[in-house]
Amino acid sequence: MRALPVGALVGAIDFGGTKTAMALIDRDGRIGPRLRIATPERPEPAAMCDLLAQQWQVLLQQAGGQAVDRVGVAAPGPADADAGILHQAFDWPWHEVPLAADLSMRLGLPVRLDNDVNCCCRAELRFGAARQARDFAWIQLSTGVGGALCCGGRIYAGAHGTAGEVGHLILEEDGPPCRCGRRGCLQALVSGPAIARRYGEAGGVAPPGAEAVFVAASAGEARARDVLLGVARDLGRGIAMVVNLLGPEMIVLGGGVLQSFAPYLPAVRAAVQDRVIGERNRQVAIVQSGVGYDAALLGAAALAQE
Amino acid sequence: MRALPVGALVGAIDFGGTKTAMALIDRDGRIGPRLRIATPERPEPAAMCDLLAQQWQVLLQQAGGQAVDRVGVAAPGPADADAGILHQAFDWPWHEVPLAADLSMRLGLPVRLDNDVNCCCRAELRFGAARQARDFAWIQLSTGVGGALCCGGRIYAGAHGTAGEVGHLILEEDGPPCRCGRRGCLQALVSGPAIARRYGEAGGVAPPGAEAVFVAASAGEARARDVLLGVARDLGRGIAMVVNLLGPEMIVLGGGVLQSFAPYLPAVRAAVQDRVIGERNRQVAIVQSGVGYDAALLGAAALAQE
Repeated sequence: MRALPVGALVGAIDFGGTKTAMALIDRDGRIGPRLRIATPERPEPAAMCDLLAQQWQVLLQQAGGQAVDRVGVAAPGPADADAGILHQAFDWPWHEVPLAADLSMRLGLPVRLDNDVNCCCRAELRFGAARQARDFAWIQLSTGVGGALCCGGRIYAGAHGTAGEVGHLILEEDGPPCRCGRRGCLQALVSGPAIARRYGEAGGVAPPGAEAVFVAASAGEARARDVLLGVARDLGRGIAMVVNLLGPEMIVLGGGVLQSFAPYLPAVRAAVQDRVIGERNRQVAIVQSGVGYDAALLGAAALAQE
Repeated sequence: MRALPVGALVGAIDFGGTKTAMALIDRDGRIGPRLRIATPERPEPAAMCDLLAQQWQVLLQQAGGQAVDRVGVAAPGPADADAGILHQAFDWPWHEVPLAADLSMRLGLPVRLDNDVNCCCRAELRFGAARQARDFAWIQLSTGVGGALCCGGRIYAGAHGTAGEVGHLILEEDGPPCRCGRRGCLQALVSGPAIARRYGEAGGVAPPGAEAVFVAASAGEARARDVLLGVARDLGRGIAMVVNLLGPEMIVLGGGVLQSFAPYLPAVRAAVQDRVIGERNRQVAIVQSGVGYDAALLGAAALAQE
């Protein structure tokens, strides 16, 4: 990586249930030195902070003395970004962890913290598909379905750091069971595992993941294509709710499942247009992520740079 | 009305498809001199402004020389409150009317303008049930179902002035027809006319409005009570979507239908709790309007006072 002026690089950390990544990132969103490790199982907050601090030193050594003056963290749960507190972690019994202060003490640098999904949304705003936008929603389709909101140019987390739970809008009261314990959530209809399950229910052999369904559809299999058109329609139903409630100019779609979803975006758009009220809402743009796989890490950098 | 210091009184105007009201209102939300007329059928914007200006003079005469230095207007359609433009009117073919400027010229005073539903939300924030809140949604149950959002202490209108269309969240893809042309919208399930229709479908004689159903239920009729419990459940389903998406601290319910709805609020709350994700979202307060019938007029005053 080319050398950059002092102050132009920030640290970004993204940790979750399975992996922990960190990198140095410049003001244009270029990623320099980076590392990635497996997250330990059920870490205590203090042990996790110690591990992050230790890996941070490894990263700084890789960086060969480039100066970093701030760090942003994308954390796996609802957070109070202003207070730097992680309210809870989705995979562990953490509660009200003052993670920004704890990490700041260990790293000797100012640390800002937010929910990882909000960080992805921030990455789209700063570096991605929503650079010209002020009002948009970000929806992630992968193993689960997450979402985050940008209202008037700022990430909006609601009263409790929980806003944007698009994946748990209930579309079918008696629909398929969702991991959250309810039935018929958007996540239970359009996530990667849901796509595989729907293919099985349509008479195919349920594959381990959604990718095989996309492959079959692009090879011309009608059953796979019909399943994916149904998924597109259900995604459109969920998006229409976001549009009617928030009147955004744009919906940005990201996550692993979306990589293969481009041929079905017209079907998503049609389902949205059929279900929103008002001319202006029908003009909402529905676009793919402009930042891709490193969204959370880039959003952590954007957070540090704010 | 007692005399108030110069500058403490503002004018408030609320006009819609059927009636036009105006009043002078003080900083504490006390309503002084007021008048109310029928709105002419299909008025042109210029004629409507002329009528408002003429009635304003009548009101000032009633007020006997009390000083007013600003006017707020609650208008019947999506608006750009910053620009003072009414994008459209629900009942008339108006488009992009610079209503704040047009009225300001006629009244000789600064005029601010917003959508009437947003004004109701503003009234709750300033004078009503949400005075302590920063993040809440306002939902109005009457002939239609409207809504507005307050995000971080400010009314949030989205990119196009249209945010908050709770009434057109589609709960049942093949549900009853809605006035908007779609099917199964929340409005088609829980508005006043919908309550009357559901009572008819349940085997009763469909009354002209919802009030008769409330009267029958409070007299102990099981059919009416079951219909209202179904309405409460559907309203809870719609509110759960708002809560999952926005993570608010409070939902404020207003409108004519709500006056009789208090006995069913526990059923609404239960339906919400069953459908929201996260401990914090389950703690959302669901309360009745603190401002009642004059909400839009009070909100227009709050807008002028901002």
